[in-house]
Amino acid sequence: MSRINIVVAGASGKMGSEALRMIEKDPTLHLVGCVDLRYNGQKVSEIDGLPKLDAKFYNDINQCFKEVKADVLIDLTSPKVGYKHTKAALLHGVRPVVGTTGFTTEQLEELTELAKEKQIGGIIAPNFAMGAVLMMQFSKMAAKFFPDIEIIEKHHDQKVDAPSGTAIKTAELIQETRQSKQQGRSDEEEIIEGARGANYDGMKIHSVRLPGLIAHQEVIFAGPGETLTIKHDSYHRESFMSGIRFAIDQVVNLTELIYGLEHLMLD
Amino acid sequence: MSRINIVVAGASGKMGSEALRMIEKDPTLHLVGCVDLRYNGQKVSEIDGLPKLDAKFYNDINQCFKEVKADVLIDLTSPKVGYKHTKAALLHGVRPVVGTTGFTTEQLEELTELAKEKQIGGIIAPNFAMGAVLMMQFSKMAAKFFPDIEIIEKHHDQKVDAPSGTAIKTAELIQETRQSKQQGRSDEEEIIEGARGANYDGMKIHSVRLPGLIAHQEVIFAGPGETLTIKHDSYHRESFMSGIRFAIDQVVNLTELIYGLEHLMLD
Amino acid sequence: MSRINIVVAGASGKMGSEALRMIEKDPTLHLVGCVDLRYNGQKVSEIDGLPKLDAKFYNDINQCFKEVKADVLIDLTSPKVGYKHTKAALLHGVRPVVGTTGFTTEQLEELTELAKEKQIGGIIAPNFAMGAVLMMQFSKMAAKFFPDIEIIEKHHDQKVDAPSGTAIKTAELIQETRQSKQQGRSDEEEIIEGARGANYDGMKIHSVRLPGLIAHQEVIFAGPGETLTIKHDSYHRESFMSGIRFAIDQVVNLTELIYGLEHLMLD
Amino acid sequence: MSRINIVVAGASGKMGSEALRMIEKDPTLHLVGCVDLRYNGQKVSEIDGLPKLDAKFYNDINQCFKEVKADVLIDLTSPKVGYKHTKAALLHGVRPVVGTTGFTTEQLEELTELAKEKQIGGIIAPNFAMGAVLMMQFSKMAAKFFPDIEIIEKHHDQKVDAPSGTAIKTAELIQETRQSKQQGRSDEEEIIEGARGANYDGMKIHSVRLPGLIAHQEVIFAGPGETLTIKHDSYHRESFMSGIRFAIDQVVNLTELIYGLEHLMLD
Repeated sequence: MSRINIVVAGASGKMGSEALRMIEKDPTLHLVGCVDLRYNGQKVSEIDGLPKLDAKFYNDINQCFKEVKADVLIDLTSPKVGYKHTKAALLHGVRPVVGTTGFTTEQLEELTELAKEKQIGGIIAPNFAMGAVLMMQFSKMAAKFFPDIEIIEKHHDQKVDAPSGTAIKTAELIQETRQSKQQGRSDEEEIIEGARGANYDGMKIHSVRLPGLIAHQEVIFAGPGETLTIKHDSYHRESFMSGIRFAIDQVVNLTELIYGLEHLMLD
Repeated sequence: MSRINIVVAGASGKMGSEALRMIEKDPTLHLVGCVDLRYNGQKVSEIDGLPKLDAKFYNDINQCFKEVKADVLIDLTSPKVGYKHTKAALLHGVRPVVGTTGFTTEQLEELTELAKEKQIGGIIAPNFAMGAVLMMQFSKMAAKFFPDIEIIEKHHDQKVDAPSGTAIKTAELIQETRQSKQQGRSDEEEIIEGARGANYDGMKIHSVRLPGLIAHQEVIFAGPGETLTIKHDSYHRESFMSGIRFAIDQVVNLTELIYGLEHLMLD
Repeated sequence: MSRINIVVAGASGKMGSEALRMIEKDPTLHLVGCVDLRYNGQKVSEIDGLPKLDAKFYNDINQCFKEVKADVLIDLTSPKVGYKHTKAALLHGVRPVVGTTGFTTEQLEELTELAKEKQIGGIIAPNFAMGAVLMMQFSKMAAKFFPDIEIIEKHHDQKVDAPSGTAIKTAELIQETRQSKQQGRSDEEEIIEGARGANYDGMKIHSVRLPGLIAHQEVIFAGPGETLTIKHDSYHRESFMSGIRFAIDQVVNLTELIYGLEHLMLD
Repeated sequence: MSRINIVVAGASGKMGSEALRMIEKDPTLHLVGCVDLRYNGQKVSEIDGLPKLDAKFYNDINQCFKEVKADVLIDLTSPKVGYKHTKAALLHGVRPVVGTTGFTTEQLEELTELAKEKQIGGIIAPNFAMGAVLMMQFSKMAAKFFPDIEIIEKHHDQKVDAPSGTAIKTAELIQETRQSKQQGRSDEEEIIEGARGANYDGMKIHSVRLPGLIAHQEVIFAGPGETLTIKHDSYHRESFMSGIRFAIDQVVNLTELIYGLEHLMLD
């Protein structure tokens, strides 16, 4: 198989530069261009901290697509720019793999329609960590049989919000299949307030915040005499890259735009 | 809904008596007879250690089916007897829920054919613990994306064989989707023999045997920067009963004989 | 070594009958009498559910000590009776091993004084599970070096109070060595109330309640780049018996009354 | 309190540069010099990747101690150099904190004698991660009461040797207090060779090697009805720095050379 030609948008960011390192290591991928607000006209190899790759930076995505022949766009920018980039990719016949969050329903509908019309495959996903996606999907499946569930998520102590976005997203997915119930005893008593955690439709979520930790979540399903635990530990943002790599191979064979990595993994 | 009439075979055994206790507590279930080598003609309530239920013991299953009107047979006997019982149930229009293992392929084929002919639902399953079944099925799904896998199973120190049957079954299921590979470094060195565990197609299985433990298994899936762990803890054989209860409700709406609880849960 | 002669008080209760089973299995121990409100004058072997041992039941402890030659009293009764029994044992030269809780400070002082005077060894301990005692003591030691701590305790969903008594006791012990601090960010935000758990001097306690679980607790200590976790899983009340067995051997060589199993284990 | 003046030896290495970052962030510490084979005469701030600190590099430790007034030496070099540096520090009245391994018994004896003579405090420790040190020491304490033990250690899949050095060191410490026994059943059968792990005096060690993992170890102690687990997770080498920081404060009040961080933590 010939190499897949890639353009990375948001290439100078944390996730973007991680994507460049992934491409550098993978002989089946070839970087043909970068799109970023910075470094217009410079080569990737000239930028401190980025891998020694020849591709050029562009600050205009259309200009980039005119000058280089791309198969796939990896977009790791912001919601506003992400929409514009995805549309540009579809119009130029480039398959988008988009890790940007915050698209509106209207934007998603428009882009889905455009992809269908053009018969171009692509994916937009809020989470590309395959382990996290499986944890959430398995939780949704298990909740059908085990309505007694508690979620424990653990993050470093610099995180402001609790529960984490992933924990809330997991609870929402669980709610789609779990028979609603108030867990525990009805006369349960908190000797110290908060001991029983956050209440989400009768199920409980606990947030641990400690130095040293990175990003961890376990979902415990319980029935008489048994528990089933699904646990995800994220140690490094390179976990995101495995999902992007997987998606690149998949979009080549698609003729539609998919929302959510789970549809490429489990459907 | 009217109550479901149940016959339990192997009713005086550990699992069988657990089934009687489940029926006793559930107002939608009604015990109409027991089949066992012992206690022929006696009432359940007369036997020490069994619940105060009125149904009678029979040592002949056909006699039992003639005298009582049963909807479902719960069979928790031995392979040889299990086959005979399942066949008798199908012939009498009773839906079998069979937790006995060790059926031969020929027996399964014959019983499947018979159920189809009679248009009677039923299930034969080697494992009715829903958590264990989900652990195995999720493992099979995850292995497609994470070929680096290790299994750690933990049991009480009176268990003779290692790895456990469940661990080996899990490895077999994983093998159906995992891309074969030898994990770890090729120049890996065991300073003490056995440190790296049992090798199963390049994946590793570790067996812990300690007093205090009951039956536990975790399957760890790993990729760059992340791990996904699926863990089942079995504390008591009543976990088996949830799956049997679930199966009873399902077989009522089936017109075929299913092998394996996973087909009722996830298909 | 000759056998140790034991009297068990509270012998017909859950813990007491567990103690009888321990004695039955251990050839170095010999049951010489039982004290209980019930069964006065009957033999242990005559009581349904108790082991086949010859010793007699007494409802008066002094009568018992007059009739049989005892080395050690195992007391598993109630606070009120426990005090009376311990005193009687000391007066009769019998070494008390007392698992009863709820002694007042005055009672403990009086009994300690009496033991000293009589030069008789003994122990009163609220918790005889050696694993739980070590978890608490190790937590106290570790807290000196890791002031960032969260406790997660998990029990079956029929437990009313949260956090558990053991979790609160652990937090109290930790407080003796931990430098007081409010953990996490000062601008931490609970999107759902209770997510961050119960606050105990700035440290957090989370209580999980699920069917299937028995009694579990983990204490997580965290510093830059590392976590240390101390976890106790209790599966069965026989765990209590190991500590009692250990204490029996220790009190034989003591000439004072000890409060708390940790002083026999770690001092 | 005035600031503590520090010299770092091996300052350009992975651990050394981590030490420089720790000093930079801590207002009570002051870097006065670096010793390294490289960068002689250059300032720390001039070296790419090192913090913006003014202290100078020396390739001769005696020259360094002549020119700057140091209170403490942090040595993170190699065994051979470490010995020479520690000796030089003691002779110049500088308190050594040494993370280098591989000292011979003769070297340790000579340095201990020299420190005693000079009445100078210091520490040499093979492991400065406080969590790891506590895990090992607690394991040694617990083994006295729970002779049934299994160790599971998990590292990234690029590690060559199994079990890890820490696991073997833990087993050695456990052996000092554990009553020797062959665990498990005598008729135990490995269906797949290696399932039961490495045998160390009848106790078992299991080594997991997977991508994504960093350095993790759990020691499981088991008795009837309970398990106690002591687990250490190392996510980043900055964990080493907490122990070094702790040691700096301790050696200031010592008049002898200590071997092993545990003696500063638990004695």
